[in-house]
Amino acid sequence: MTHVTDPRDGGVRLAVVQIDDYGPWTTTPAPRRETDLQALQARLFATVADFFGDRDGYAFAGRYDNMLGVANHIEPETFSRLQERVANRYPVSVSVGVGTASTPAAALEAAGAVLQEAGSAQQTDRREVLDHRVVDGATPEGVTVAHFDVVDATGELTDRVSPDIAERTVRWTMLTLSDRLAEAHAAVARFVGGDNAIAVCPPLNRPALGTVLSDVRAQTGVELQVGVGHGPSAHAAGSEAKHALEECRATGSRIEGPWEVADD
Amino acid sequence: MTHVTDPRDGGVRLAVVQIDDYGPWTTTPAPRRETDLQALQARLFATVADFFGDRDGYAFAGRYDNMLGVANHIEPETFSRLQERVANRYPVSVSVGVGTASTPAAALEAAGAVLQEAGSAQQTDRREVLDHRVVDGATPEGVTVAHFDVVDATGELTDRVSPDIAERTVRWTMLTLSDRLAEAHAAVARFVGGDNAIAVCPPLNRPALGTVLSDVRAQTGVELQVGVGHGPSAHAAGSEAKHALEECRATGSRIEGPWEVADD
Amino acid sequence: MTHVTDPRDGGVRLAVVQIDDYGPWTTTPAPRRETDLQALQARLFATVADFFGDRDGYAFAGRYDNMLGVANHIEPETFSRLQERVANRYPVSVSVGVGTASTPAAALEAAGAVLQEAGSAQQTDRREVLDHRVVDGATPEGVTVAHFDVVDATGELTDRVSPDIAERTVRWTMLTLSDRLAEAHAAVARFVGGDNAIAVCPPLNRPALGTVLSDVRAQTGVELQVGVGHGPSAHAAGSEAKHALEECRATGSRIEGPWEVADD
Amino acid sequence: MTHVTDPRDGGVRLAVVQIDDYGPWTTTPAPRRETDLQALQARLFATVADFFGDRDGYAFAGRYDNMLGVANHIEPETFSRLQERVANRYPVSVSVGVGTASTPAAALEAAGAVLQEAGSAQQTDRREVLDHRVVDGATPEGVTVAHFDVVDATGELTDRVSPDIAERTVRWTMLTLSDRLAEAHAAVARFVGGDNAIAVCPPLNRPALGTVLSDVRAQTGVELQVGVGHGPSAHAAGSEAKHALEECRATGSRIEGPWEVADD
Repeated sequence: MTHVTDPRDGGVRLAVVQIDDYGPWTTTPAPRRETDLQALQARLFATVADFFGDRDGYAFAGRYDNMLGVANHIEPETFSRLQERVANRYPVSVSVGVGTASTPAAALEAAGAVLQEAGSAQQTDRREVLDHRVVDGATPEGVTVAHFDVVDATGELTDRVSPDIAERTVRWTMLTLSDRLAEAHAAVARFVGGDNAIAVCPPLNRPALGTVLSDVRAQTGVELQVGVGHGPSAHAAGSEAKHALEECRATGSRIEGPWEVADD
Repeated sequence: MTHVTDPRDGGVRLAVVQIDDYGPWTTTPAPRRETDLQALQARLFATVADFFGDRDGYAFAGRYDNMLGVANHIEPETFSRLQERVANRYPVSVSVGVGTASTPAAALEAAGAVLQEAGSAQQTDRREVLDHRVVDGATPEGVTVAHFDVVDATGELTDRVSPDIAERTVRWTMLTLSDRLAEAHAAVARFVGGDNAIAVCPPLNRPALGTVLSDVRAQTGVELQVGVGHGPSAHAAGSEAKHALEECRATGSRIEGPWEVADD
Repeated sequence: MTHVTDPRDGGVRLAVVQIDDYGPWTTTPAPRRETDLQALQARLFATVADFFGDRDGYAFAGRYDNMLGVANHIEPETFSRLQERVANRYPVSVSVGVGTASTPAAALEAAGAVLQEAGSAQQTDRREVLDHRVVDGATPEGVTVAHFDVVDATGELTDRVSPDIAERTVRWTMLTLSDRLAEAHAAVARFVGGDNAIAVCPPLNRPALGTVLSDVRAQTGVELQVGVGHGPSAHAAGSEAKHALEECRATGSRIEGPWEVADD
Repeated sequence: MTHVTDPRDGGVRLAVVQIDDYGPWTTTPAPRRETDLQALQARLFATVADFFGDRDGYAFAGRYDNMLGVANHIEPETFSRLQERVANRYPVSVSVGVGTASTPAAALEAAGAVLQEAGSAQQTDRREVLDHRVVDGATPEGVTVAHFDVVDATGELTDRVSPDIAERTVRWTMLTLSDRLAEAHAAVARFVGGDNAIAVCPPLNRPALGTVLSDVRAQTGVELQVGVGHGPSAHAAGSEAKHALEECRATGSRIEGPWEVADD
């Protein structure tokens, strides 16, 4: 089974950054201006992305009020500095749940659970929670990142169809990919802009990735390519994945990664 | 038919803000750090949201390299100030396509078409295009906004399931909604964070909205509620919609808006 | 006398943007991290600068907790939108005092007075004040801007002496200039970065400016050059001043402006 | 002599962050909008302040195109990450000079010298320099920070006089303080907003600080108070200094610090 964690990986650490009591804030004392909320969410995510990036992690915007991060290199208590920074910069505060487990999905579930057990996301007196759960003694070691994009997105979508259709096509495709990877491989995959999606996943081999790509194409009609990387941090793994994807673009290959020939 | 434009509306104006030659920039001279790209995209969108918000418009993040805005109140040439601001603040520049048409979908298609006709999104010498297309003599008059959210998202999702599942559930639901509104009503609807989606749409009546909600529930299992507003700008219409949605939350109603009783 | 307001100008409008109850906030519950405060102040000023810039005004950082703006083109009630934006983006709120008078100094004094009369800057319940005072029936008409810089600052300072000495030299010079212009011409002049200072002033002629430059040189040993512009907004006047200063740089002239030859 | 470095301190490390070829950029192809430049400089400084703050350093805005930082805890090569971040976020790039010496003034001079020797600040092909100079084998160990403010600035200035006069008074005072500390103690002191100034200095004792305060009062008429701290990083030292200043505010004392009674 492809989603059994490779011994190279040990485990992964993911984090959820949740805005405290955000829903009520957005409508108190009256509904706040929508563009101000959009801008606040975007800037807060940029701050979170910078924080993870400074520590060689990765970040995903999630639902904006619940952002995600890959934190293999980051000690859980470090997030108190993120909480301090957010409180000193924004009109809202954040709670952070951290989970370490053998799969990305399990790590994220654990990260969410520590927040849920501390109280509701809309509980006035539950502020700036910071907690960590380790599942089955997992320790963060290496990370595998798969970086996907749409083959010739510019020619097929951006330059050809309505921006509305291009966006819905890309988002359907990436959401299908995300579901597929979650279900088959306990991976966490997200659209990250343009025609790109990034997955934190177990060290999938070439045949497993081939199946993912063909399943997505069967469901959406869209052809993806993917570069894979492995490293001690999300940044290191992701950099390798980006270079691998560049090789796809250069050679017309659909899957590139750090495998031995024997792996296929 | 519900998507015939109401004479109250006349037409709507939408804009596409496209980063010039962005794909190549992200990998030149080597792939740039992913969290820096995520942060750049988020801050650029915040700048765009502020620009629209300052002029009582609305903005959507789109695919980040192709952002969307509702610009009923905004003269097309005004966007040269946005272009100046972006070039003075960021390492990238943007082109802006503006479309005015009888439906949001047609306006967005026209906005995209003026950019496509000016050249490819990845053409080095196509920079800071600003153009406007009017379809069939439409003029921007009133805007209708529908603001949707998930009934008890905090209790059913945020506080209960994994952040991964909560996000995928909300995004599937909102993408289903978006497709449904595009196909049946030529509306443009987008997820805007948390459990919220906003649609720029023709002035749908209560039965039409009821059908949308029940169709989405049938496909996704998720129950939505919606507030509708109408006004001279996206901000005015959206504010009315937010207040209507507050009434849903307060009363348990699923659809609220500015209709006469006779409308139903 | 050179500081008598020229009939071309009528009057000017300036604004003070004051952070509410900021001192206590910076030490509650304990002194906040200094770099977070520095970053907050800088970003808040950037937001204020954008707000004025969007309306063709000018902004100065002032003391950061008391920022300044030139608002000839801006209706006083417009600042409620700035207050809304700040409250929706930052952990602090701002009060805004607006003054319209025949000189920049008198306008700024009036702007400060309306805040002082509303209560102390450190009064907990004095939040988001917005008020306007007109002195002697002045109305905002044209603005004169003088843009100064140091002759060969790069060669004489940046590339030659310690950054510490370069900065203290420039700041002494610009503060001397600021005092000189305030006392002799009721102008408001501020250092704006690098080796630049900008003054909002009455429409000084060439001999008056020559005296200012030689007085500053006598006190500080630093030689300045200046471009002057006049226009309906600070942006229009400042643009003309910048172009005039470019002419100084190109020709070796020390004073350039929109005067007739007869003016000298 | 008070400015002999205390053996507790060993040496200090300071950095200069200089925007590459900035002057020409601000006027190419034509003078850029002043408020856009103000906002860019402010945001860039906020990014720099965050970078230092994340590593327990301190940052000063300097002249905006030449920013300063206290970097005792930061390895010089770390600044390549700041350079990467700036290039990925802004339309400009930065060079960084780092100096380690026995006094703050000497460290800053060394930091400037490595940039000056690499070429002119306005040299087109001198970009993203990063270099470090150690003076006389100094190594960064502890830092002393003195945090000054004006006694009752709110009552005496903010709530009482024009914002123009309040600002010029505070800036004259802080610049006088800065010169006095540079000349007598080879310290680097800067205004940091409101009525505050921060000095990185040798471990001055109470009598030396008393002389500084009375000299400043004699020259400017303004009474200052000061809290002093010492620690392994600017943040640690500065936090102690802030708490000491809080004690001044609480007790009416004018000088507080971590001295033994015998020290006085």
